[in-house]
Amino acid sequence: MNLLNETIKKIKGVDREIMEKCKNRVDNLIKPVGSLGKLEDIVIKLAGITGDMYPKVDNKSVIVMAADHGVCEEGIAAAPKEVTLMQAINMTKGLTGVCAMAKQAKSDVVVVDIGIDGEINNDKIINKKIKHGTENITKGPAMTRKEAITSIETGILVATEEIKKGKNILTTGEMGIGNTTPSAAIVSAITGMDPKEVTWVGANLPMDKLKNKINCVKRAIEVNKPIKEDTIDVLSKVGGLEIGGMAGVMLACAANRVPIVIDGFICTVAALIAYGIEPKVKEYLIPSHSSEEKGAKYASEILGLKPMLDMNMRLGEGSGGVLAFNIIEAATYMNNEMITFKEAGIGVV
Amino acid sequence: MNLLNETIKKIKGVDREIMEKCKNRVDNLIKPVGSLGKLEDIVIKLAGITGDMYPKVDNKSVIVMAADHGVCEEGIAAAPKEVTLMQAINMTKGLTGVCAMAKQAKSDVVVVDIGIDGEINNDKIINKKIKHGTENITKGPAMTRKEAITSIETGILVATEEIKKGKNILTTGEMGIGNTTPSAAIVSAITGMDPKEVTWVGANLPMDKLKNKINCVKRAIEVNKPIKEDTIDVLSKVGGLEIGGMAGVMLACAANRVPIVIDGFICTVAALIAYGIEPKVKEYLIPSHSSEEKGAKYASEILGLKPMLDMNMRLGEGSGGVLAFNIIEAATYMNNEMITFKEAGIGVV
Repeated sequence: MNLLNETIKKIKGVDREIMEKCKNRVDNLIKPVGSLGKLEDIVIKLAGITGDMYPKVDNKSVIVMAADHGVCEEGIAAAPKEVTLMQAINMTKGLTGVCAMAKQAKSDVVVVDIGIDGEINNDKIINKKIKHGTENITKGPAMTRKEAITSIETGILVATEEIKKGKNILTTGEMGIGNTTPSAAIVSAITGMDPKEVTWVGANLPMDKLKNKINCVKRAIEVNKPIKEDTIDVLSKVGGLEIGGMAGVMLACAANRVPIVIDGFICTVAALIAYGIEPKVKEYLIPSHSSEEKGAKYASEILGLKPMLDMNMRLGEGSGGVLAFNIIEAATYMNNEMITFKEAGIGVV
Repeated sequence: MNLLNETIKKIKGVDREIMEKCKNRVDNLIKPVGSLGKLEDIVIKLAGITGDMYPKVDNKSVIVMAADHGVCEEGIAAAPKEVTLMQAINMTKGLTGVCAMAKQAKSDVVVVDIGIDGEINNDKIINKKIKHGTENITKGPAMTRKEAITSIETGILVATEEIKKGKNILTTGEMGIGNTTPSAAIVSAITGMDPKEVTWVGANLPMDKLKNKINCVKRAIEVNKPIKEDTIDVLSKVGGLEIGGMAGVMLACAANRVPIVIDGFICTVAALIAYGIEPKVKEYLIPSHSSEEKGAKYASEILGLKPMLDMNMRLGEGSGGVLAFNIIEAATYMNNEMITFKEAGIGVV
């Protein structure tokens, strides 16, 4: 709890003065004002986050949190729970989707066992196991409040370690079969929306099983009665260990003035948790792609995230966040490589 | 005309058999089927274009065609015509928007003077000047049919040269103050839509001048009566030299089985011209971003292009095409780096 409290205390708003200066420069680059759209918004935001007029995002990591979910025993996922462990190991070998994206974008991939249900002996996976997966949320809380806080603090620790190594941009991913169910439950708990409005098929759940999944989300809310104003309570009652870990990464980024890219549904839900803990986190979030999951839209709206990639992607793992790294880096190149009209010695176009 | 005819003859449909094989591999990679969305579609298309199950797009160029427009004397552009020449020179120095994107994406930038109204003495600009800008399309044809064909053949020559150097993906950009006016005229001529439905403000034309711009497009159509079934006729009567050049680049890509990325409005319009000349060109086009210009939507629909980047960009220069290079390359990494369930020795998720 000390680490979480200290981290929250360190989070300040972004530097609006430097944002104004950066906007002034961007408006005067040799192009029609506003013609590079979201690239302009991104670099101005990065300037505010970092306090640097010429921010760089050339040292990248995706932190993948892996954990299991007791609610899988309700038949809410197409894949068996064992896939979480298998894919975590495949990630250390560079074989999964996020690894391919990361190789192209020159990003490191950091894999963390924060609650896989199984024993792992792999020195490429950071062992931060809190428990062997969450409990079945249709029957009781996913975890204790203490475990929820530990999951967040785990994310803070891992992210701080990466930042100490010189990383200047992070994104988070997850591997956790079944985790669109707790994610939908979190959105329902926080927004008060009906589970059927925020629950979708995740990783190819057959349509005829969607009704059961919606019912599970409904029961999770009814049984646990999460308190929406207290997102740590929501996380502990209907969430997941990897979701807490991702929220912790975001808090650490905000505390250290490092931009954090938000991947798809589960990552956006983790951002809701972090935002509930400290609303200023919102200013440090950079959007990536639009998720296909129903609940993602509502979560993104709360956070003011407007996706820039429209890829029909729904893999998770942080794949969309890593894909956006290049676009965000291009925004910094615009700012660093282009010159202003004044520098070019010509009038404004 | 010989070069154009020979190029058209070389254009064949994409290889559907290899696309089927590639789709089979992509469906079996260790991820839920379809979960990488458009990245999957892209690599399958690239396989069909190149005839290679493992296509690569690691050797990139953007070919920027620069030319002027006689219609500028009607007050349809916010910037003076002289900016075309200035920005073409700034491009050789790496200072404009597309150069910044290209540096990040590790792409070459090839600048071609295909019709700038001014003398250039710069060995970094390829001199292919056909004439000193087009004529004023509100008073008569932009150029002769022969000049239109020469503009297309110029694009073919420059693109073929790049492909000979080993480039395995191209995009086209343009620099030509005033060129959203002929672009709108081309869309109106080809679709039969009212000029006011397809004309917008380009590079920050003040709103009170939009009506005049729409009227210019209307007069260009009325005076020249372009024949919509003959896109070379449309190009010569209401088009632009750089638009012809870009269409030529696309035809050369299709003839040489090289993917060509389609940037914003003017590039999409050039693709309409190329598509009119040889419809199979369509199979070689890869979309990039959604343009803010009104006419772009209709042109994209005809070509079946679904943009993947939603950036509110409207700079031109090929900036959006280059920005998409990274995403397209990520699709090839997915195919090359990930393994199938069979290769991983596990069942399908």
